[in-house]
Amino acid sequence: MNSRAIVKPKRTVRVELADRSYDILIGPGLIASAANEIASRLKGRRMAVITDENVGARYLAPLMDSLAASGIDAVSLVLPAGEKTKSFEHLIPVCETILGARIERNDAVIALGGGVIGDLTGFAAGIARRGSRFIQIPTSLLAQVDSSVGGKTGINSPHGKNLIGVFHQPDLVLADTDVLDTLSPREFRAGYAEVAKYGLIDKPDFFDWLEANWRAVFAGGDARIEAIATSCQAKADVVAADERENGRRALLNLGHTFGHALEAATQYDGSRLVHGEGVAIGMVLAHRFSARMNLASPDDAARVEAHLKDVGLPTRMGDIPGALPPVGTLMDAIAQDKKVKGGQLTFILTRGIGRSFVADDVPASEVIRFLEEMHPR
Amino acid sequence: MNSRAIVKPKRTVRVELADRSYDILIGPGLIASAANEIASRLKGRRMAVITDENVGARYLAPLMDSLAASGIDAVSLVLPAGEKTKSFEHLIPVCETILGARIERNDAVIALGGGVIGDLTGFAAGIARRGSRFIQIPTSLLAQVDSSVGGKTGINSPHGKNLIGVFHQPDLVLADTDVLDTLSPREFRAGYAEVAKYGLIDKPDFFDWLEANWRAVFAGGDARIEAIATSCQAKADVVAADERENGRRALLNLGHTFGHALEAATQYDGSRLVHGEGVAIGMVLAHRFSARMNLASPDDAARVEAHLKDVGLPTRMGDIPGALPPVGTLMDAIAQDKKVKGGQLTFILTRGIGRSFVADDVPASEVIRFLEEMHPR
Ligand SMILES: NC(=O)c1ccc[n+]([C@@H]2O[C@H](COP(=O)([O-])OP(=O)(O)OC[C@H]3O[C@@H](n4cnc5c(N)ncnc54)[C@H](O)[C@@H]3O)[C@@H](O)[C@H]2O)c1
Ligand SMILES: NC(=O)c1ccc[n+]([C@@H]2O[C@H](COP(=O)([O-])OP(=O)(O)OC[C@H]3O[C@@H](n4cnc5c(N)ncnc54)[C@H](O)[C@@H]3O)[C@@H](O)[C@H]2O)c1
Ligand SMILES: [Zn+2]
Ligand SMILES: [Zn+2]
Repeated sequence: MNSRAIVKPKRTVRVELADRSYDILIGPGLIASAANEIASRLKGRRMAVITDENVGARYLAPLMDSLAASGIDAVSLVLPAGEKTKSFEHLIPVCETILGARIERNDAVIALGGGVIGDLTGFAAGIARRGSRFIQIPTSLLAQVDSSVGGKTGINSPHGKNLIGVFHQPDLVLADTDVLDTLSPREFRAGYAEVAKYGLIDKPDFFDWLEANWRAVFAGGDARIEAIATSCQAKADVVAADERENGRRALLNLGHTFGHALEAATQYDGSRLVHGEGVAIGMVLAHRFSARMNLASPDDAARVEAHLKDVGLPTRMGDIPGALPPVGTLMDAIAQDKKVKGGQLTFILTRGIGRSFVADDVPASEVIRFLEEMHPR
Repeated sequence: MNSRAIVKPKRTVRVELADRSYDILIGPGLIASAANEIASRLKGRRMAVITDENVGARYLAPLMDSLAASGIDAVSLVLPAGEKTKSFEHLIPVCETILGARIERNDAVIALGGGVIGDLTGFAAGIARRGSRFIQIPTSLLAQVDSSVGGKTGINSPHGKNLIGVFHQPDLVLADTDVLDTLSPREFRAGYAEVAKYGLIDKPDFFDWLEANWRAVFAGGDARIEAIATSCQAKADVVAADERENGRRALLNLGHTFGHALEAATQYDGSRLVHGEGVAIGMVLAHRFSARMNLASPDDAARVEAHLKDVGLPTRMGDIPGALPPVGTLMDAIAQDKKVKGGQLTFILTRGIGRSFVADDVPASEVIRFLEEMHPR
């Protein structure tokens, strides 16, 4: 068996969006055979690959080799790693690289990296020539189960995260499950919070399964592939039903209103809190708050907390190193979150595990009282 | 009659795009009563107005007064005038102004100016919060009859004009025909080239009418309103049939392949050639080339040239001040134009006045020979 042997993806999830439908391929070794999957779907022979320094050092060469072996003429750009890269400063060279590569109608832009590279590159692909074909090769767990699916792209502004961008669906997503072995354990856990989220939204059986099988998911192999495929399918279903986030897609924000406020409260300092950790704490808070509003049993909140704690995620505000700002500041961040309409507070609450719903009339006074109790001080 | 008297638009053209349909209102005095038209269509009470220094000095105050009188809370940003403003450098402050103004779902971004401000602001509105409502108040003739209609937005790149952008339809277009009185005669003529273009594409009767009435169009009043409304209707029909420029919309590029090459050949130096002038020369060249290919009568080319000359537009390459680069350089620019697919030359040619069509198999050798003859040297 030679090194260019064609690797078959173990699972395929289809995102149904009429003439913009696309496949998510999930399995080991997909980067080394990426060009086969690409060439069988796209006629173009010119590509621009965007990556970051961490991912680029490990996986850019095999990808470029695979493309070259298939006769695809690719250029690449390696950017600094980290959330700060999601900015106009880095968007500009990505656009110029795409335009300089003379990407035409059947060619494509490839994002090789985590959610930062995916969001930035997807945005650039969405605006270069008013929309160029786009392939996601997500390399973090978070990117494989969340950010690479659904077509939301963008960069940050001094006014807030993800405020500038477009909806631009990829033509193909290649989730190589082997590359997660080099992801830091902390980043893997952070991505796992989003995996658990799909169970908590509306898949109680999946949450049961995760409680029983999470060690195997962390270890790799078929359980990992299964968890990623189930997550992608869950997100694909929501996106197919509500591409532009007007209704049901809001459920994907379970845990995110509190989570974003905590990210803002820690100045997006990843050494204190990364996104998935904020989501973990936020999901526990959402379940506790729902219990407090007599919507759900406190036992469910306890069960959610126990599981996230087992895998090593933070679950309480007090788990965040360093001092947190007062509740007033957290509330300001909550009110600035996008999910506020005309001053009303919108939250994703739950009636129990797998029974989340959109509540758009949550009284701010209740949230404040709840946060006062939860705040570690 | 007080100064806030409600001015009724003289003509309304509807752009039919299903749930994104919108009105173009055309008539005198619309800026001073803009807020009435806006408030009757949009619920939001926050707006961000973007303009340039020339237009801002004349029309920003009346617009802001109108908005304030209607209880709309508006912020404004005044940018330098000129094509160089269509760049990332200026896009960034426009986005930050929009985000800083906390434009929400029912609020809007307003472009007050020519095509430069419209293209830049529309792009920013298209990406701020992944799409904000957008109102065009075009103030140049070109913007009123062309760039403000159809949702094409964008900025320039070192790799070429208009290469970065999105499709983002406005919610309303207000074409105040009075403001054209302060446009320089040269800019008015340049916009007129696009008006004449609609006749040449597929409205021979309109071209007849223009030949008879162009002096009245230049003078203002009802003939001007009529010419603008007919032009907007023509563009609206094409856009409704082909929003994303895959087919019929390409006809709007009549005269533009040659025109863009001439703009590039003069380094987009507006003192030598502005866009509409390039289009005027380009339309004459397209008719002459069509005659040369035995598609149309040379009499039609002569008639087109005579009319454009009458209104004071340049019609020949030799009319451009300064030396032009050799034919080879012009051909390179033509080949770099977006309308090239897989190396084949696509041109809008014609079978006579009002009988244009898309030809996608034009032999480069014929174009070169034709340009050799036309080149002033
Ligand atoms: N578009 C969406 O729908 C969506 C959804 C959720 C999150 N996001 C965005 O995703 C971003 C977070 O994504 P992320 O967590 O992937 O962050 P990231 O892209 O910064 O990746 C995290 C870190 O892991 C490194 N890394 C990635 N893959 C690796 C691998 N295989 N081996 C070794 N190191 C690797 C990266 O270099 C980086 O240092 C945020 O900006 C967030 O806003 C977007
Ligand atoms: N989006 C589209 O579909 C589309 C179509 C055609 C052209 N365009 C773009 O439009 C731009 C050209 O538009 P333009 O010709 O309006 O250029 P412009 O916006 O630069 O305006 C021309 C000049 O006239 C001034 N001006 C505008 N209105 C005035 C008024 N009422 N009184 C006094 N001065 C006034 C401006 O300040 C500027 O100096 C180009 O960038 C072109 O690419 C876009
Ligand atoms: Zn998330
Ligand atoms: Zn034009």
